[in-house]
Order: sequence, then C-alpha cells, then structure tokens
Amino acid sequence: MKDKKRWYIGVDIGGTQLRAALFDQSGLEPVCLKKAATHSPKAEPLEILTALIAQVWPSEGQVIKIGVGVAGPLNPDTGIVYRCPNIPEWQHLALRQLLESRFQAPVAIGNDANLAALAEWKYGAGVGHNDLLYLTISTGIGGGVISAGRLITGARGIAAELGHFTVWPDGPLCGCGHRGHLEAISSGTAITNYVREQLAAGRSSSLSARLEELNASLISSAAREGDPLAAEAFERAGTFLGRALADFLHLYDPTILVLGGGVMKSGELIMRPIRREMEAGVMSPEYLRGLTVTTARLGDRVGLIGALALAQS
Amino acid sequence: MKDKKRWYIGVDIGGTQLRAALFDQSGLEPVCLKKAATHSPKAEPLEILTALIAQVWPSEGQVIKIGVGVAGPLNPDTGIVYRCPNIPEWQHLALRQLLESRFQAPVAIGNDANLAALAEWKYGAGVGHNDLLYLTISTGIGGGVISAGRLITGARGIAAELGHFTVWPDGPLCGCGHRGHLEAISSGTAITNYVREQLAAGRSSSLSARLEELNASLISSAAREGDPLAAEAFERAGTFLGRALADFLHLYDPTILVLGGGVMKSGELIMRPIRREMEAGVMSPEYLRGLTVTTARLGDRVGLIGALALAQS
Repeated sequence: MKDKKRWYIGVDIGGTQLRAALFDQSGLEPVCLKKAATHSPKAEPLEILTALIAQVWPSEGQVIKIGVGVAGPLNPDTGIVYRCPNIPEWQHLALRQLLESRFQAPVAIGNDANLAALAEWKYGAGVGHNDLLYLTISTGIGGGVISAGRLITGARGIAAELGHFTVWPDGPLCGCGHRGHLEAISSGTAITNYVREQLAAGRSSSLSARLEELNASLISSAAREGDPLAAEAFERAGTFLGRALADFLHLYDPTILVLGGGVMKSGELIMRPIRREMEAGVMSPEYLRGLTVTTARLGDRVGLIGALALAQS
Repeated sequence: MKDKKRWYIGVDIGGTQLRAALFDQSGLEPVCLKKAATHSPKAEPLEILTALIAQVWPSEGQVIKIGVGVAGPLNPDTGIVYRCPNIPEWQHLALRQLLESRFQAPVAIGNDANLAALAEWKYGAGVGHNDLLYLTISTGIGGGVISAGRLITGARGIAAELGHFTVWPDGPLCGCGHRGHLEAISSGTAITNYVREQLAAGRSSSLSARLEELNASLISSAAREGDPLAAEAFERAGTFLGRALADFLHLYDPTILVLGGGVMKSGELIMRPIRREMEAGVMSPEYLRGLTVTTARLGDRVGLIGALALAQS
C-alpha cells in the first residue's frame, strides 16, 4: 500500500489577479499554478476563485490546508474579510467558511502584507531571526511584524498597518482619508503625486514631457540620469521612511528590517535617506546593535509562498 | 511535617525611591514592605537595594523568584540594565546576575512601564483581555503592550517605547534629544513647559503668579477654574495623545487601552480630546469595535504588583 500523498494549496487574492498553486509537502515551487483576472464580465470574483482552486486540486492524496492571502483587512480568527479595496462587493465576507464548505478542507486566511512578512521570515531574507519587521513600499505601503517568533495580528486581525501611521500631521491626504500617513508621503503613488504637483507648480524637470506615463519607476530612472526634482522626490520619500523605521524600532525592537515593493528597486536613491534618517532617529544606539536592513528576497513569489507558509503553520 | 512556605519578592527601582516587598503565594498585599531613598551619601544604590531585599527576606520557607522592575531600558533575556536615567552609575549593569549570586534565588528583571502593563493586565483594569495597550502619562510617557496574551519586549527588551514616537516632526525637543516625540508634547513636563513658554510670550493667565511651583496638577486645577491657557495646554496634550492612540490601534490592534500616570488625574480635561482625536484618527471603525478605553486601576501599587507578576510568570 502506497503512502497517501499530502498537499498544500496556496491562494493569492490580488486586486487585479487571482492565483492558486498546488504545493507538495516539501517544496516552495508550485507543482501546478493557475492565474486569472480578478474581475471578469462573466463571473463574480468568488466564482473565479473557486474555479481556480478546483483547477489546481490534486487528483490523488489529501489537501492538508488551503492558505489564502487577501489584499485587504480581515480577521484570521473568524475567517472574515472586512473588505477588499479592489473587490468592492466583498464586505464582511465569511471567506474561510465559504471555501471550507465548498472544498471540505481546512482553510486559513491572512492579510497579504502580513503573509509576506511570514514568507520572508520562514523562507526569505529573514530566516533565522525571531523579531522581524517587513515593509512593502509599492503603490501603497503595507507591512507585517514577527515578534518573538509569532506574527502580530492583533485582536481583530488588523494590527501592523505600518503604512497608516502619522509621520507628518500637516502632510498630504492618504488614500484612507487621513492626513500625513506614511503611505501618503513615501509610497510609489505619493512619489508620483509629488513630482506631478511640483511640475504643476512650474518646476522644471526632464519628466515634464512624460506627464502621462509618470510613475515611480520612471522617476527613479530620471533621478539616476541626474534630474534634481526626481532625486528630490526619492529623498523626501526616503526621509520619512527612515524616520518611520526609527519609530518602528522603538515600537517593535526587531533584529531585521526587510524592505520590499517596487519603490525599493530604486536602490540607493531610497536607501541612502532611509539609513541616514533611521540611524539619526533612534533614541539609543541599542536599537541598531546587530540590526540587519535588507531588501525582500522572494519577489513576485512572496504572495503564494506567504499563503503556503500560512497553510503550513 | 509542615509544607514548606513559598514566597515571591517584588522590587521596584525608581529614580528617587527603592521598594522591596514580600508576597505569599496567593496575595497582592505585601506581607512585608520596605522602602529607601535611591540615593544616599552612605551607600551605593545597589547596596541599598540588596539591604532592602535582605530586610524583607522570609525567615522560613523558599523564595520562588525575585521580580525586579527598573525605570530604564534593559534586556529581560540577558538580565542587563542598559542604563537607568536616575542612577547614572548603572551602565550595562548585570543586575540579574548580581542579585542571583547575592541571594541564591532566581531573579527576573523588567522595564517598569512594561511591568505596569503586565500588572494592569493580570490584576488591574485589563483582566480578561488578550490584547492590551498601557500608556502612562506622567513626567515622561512610557508604555507596554500585551499582544495575544504575551508582553511584547522585542529582541533586545526595548520594544513598546510608546513615548518616543514622532507625532509632530516640527514639535518640541524631547528629553531623549529627538524632536516631536509624544513625550515632548503630551507628558506632564511638556504640559508645564508649554504653559511656561506661553506665559513668557506674554499670555495672561491665573498661573502667571505661580510660576515657581508650576506643574501639571496645578495647571489642571486652573483649567477647572476656567483659565483658558491651562485648558488649552491639556487640549493640546490630549489632541496629540488621541492621534498617537489611533496610530497605536493601527499598529497593535488591542481591545483595551489602559491610561495611567498623574496627567490622567485631570479627567475629562485630557480624556475629551483623547477620545475625539482617537475616534477621528482611526482608518476604519473596526479598530473601535469592542474597544475599552479606561484609566489604570492599580495606582501607586502598580510597580510592586508588576514585579510580582513578573516573578510569577
């Protein structure tokens, strides 16, 4: 008699794309991977999602657990997604229950940024650390914290919202409606908005000809080519990121900071002000003792590997 | 044969006073309590401390553990006190080791604000909660966080420094040397400094006659008697406290906020702006669902009860 094969399924629910992957018990490489657009005129996101999971379902053996990462606030204990900014029809959706009832297998759900922290900790840049802070600086800013070997989720599952933390009370409005959050100053969107505003105010820059296609990646290239406004935009974003990281050190006292997301591709443009302000901002050099500051290692795979790590835990 | 009696000893190391107490296994009331000034021309603080512990040492039975709370940053894992602002000779002092070797009993050390959080959680306002944030607003601002039933200490023991978190980058200088920390705007000292500055700038107030003896308690009385500057000082402090608490909700997602320290004795003067700004500042009403906001319950006993709670854990 053969041993029964045992599997995990990892699911990544993004605003534009859904992904489901089958993992065997030992690997990080999906045995089977399926993707689909989140929105379609033919079906609801939940239908597309369940169809995707069915497509990767193994023909033999047992699925130990399905891990699901969601881009939005949710409660991992109750399995309820509070809302999903890019899937407006999901409001207090009992996602875990719905999937457990459909697939007759245990399901765990987690916030995507929290799961990215988990993934980098278990399989990426943070292996071997017990206290890790992960920050993703992309169109928005999200994060996750591992403290004494456990993910901090909070009582309702909505802790470690590291992008929504006031760094400048008089600063720009954040997407969430509040003023001066880190996300409103240092995200890729905020960097782009800043350049746009400065151009509108009459500043000259090589970017003024490329207003239509403006984004953080383009601004990063311009900065490397010596454009002062572009360099200033990263300097400003990095300054507030570094200050926020000093505050995060005071609040969580980790041994490693893992920085991910598209904005980090700008390299030293953003890292220089981050390091400078963080080092200047800590109240005691103890916080920097043995501190590793590094970029995320898992790249685009972080969503599915985070869902896998959740299923395994 | 009689059962051997078992005891705990709790020690509170403050900047001006040292206290040691003997507790039996079941009570929160010390069986024996001794106090001494931290500083004396006759002896070093460490000698005074060991003499105090010897004074409360039981004549029979076994001391299970000595719990020690220290007003300063320290590492509970290594037992080393990094420094103690009011005992300048303590620099990287191996306090746990020294006491264990002197008394031949297990010793645990903890930061006083962290232990106050532990005490309020186990025996005070936070009983029954799993996720608690404690903030003490006194001459300085300190705090502690319980997350999923565990004290967040961080990798080096210096997490949850809730007073040293930038709430206003252009704000006043903090005692730690950085600008705009919560402590620099909302502590009792900061409230007093603000009134002093406004008076120096020519503002009129009933307090201008009492400049010598000015403190937060006096300002609170003046505010209750209708003094506009005094009321404004609390309004300003409470505004930043409320905003900081909204950020703390985003970062730790607790179910209870326990507010202690002398400034909280001003009651609604400080609570009104705290509640208003906190409620306005959260990015989602989820953070307020089932949230208890309350004052600390253990009063002056919190130091020794925190040390006891540490010894028991």
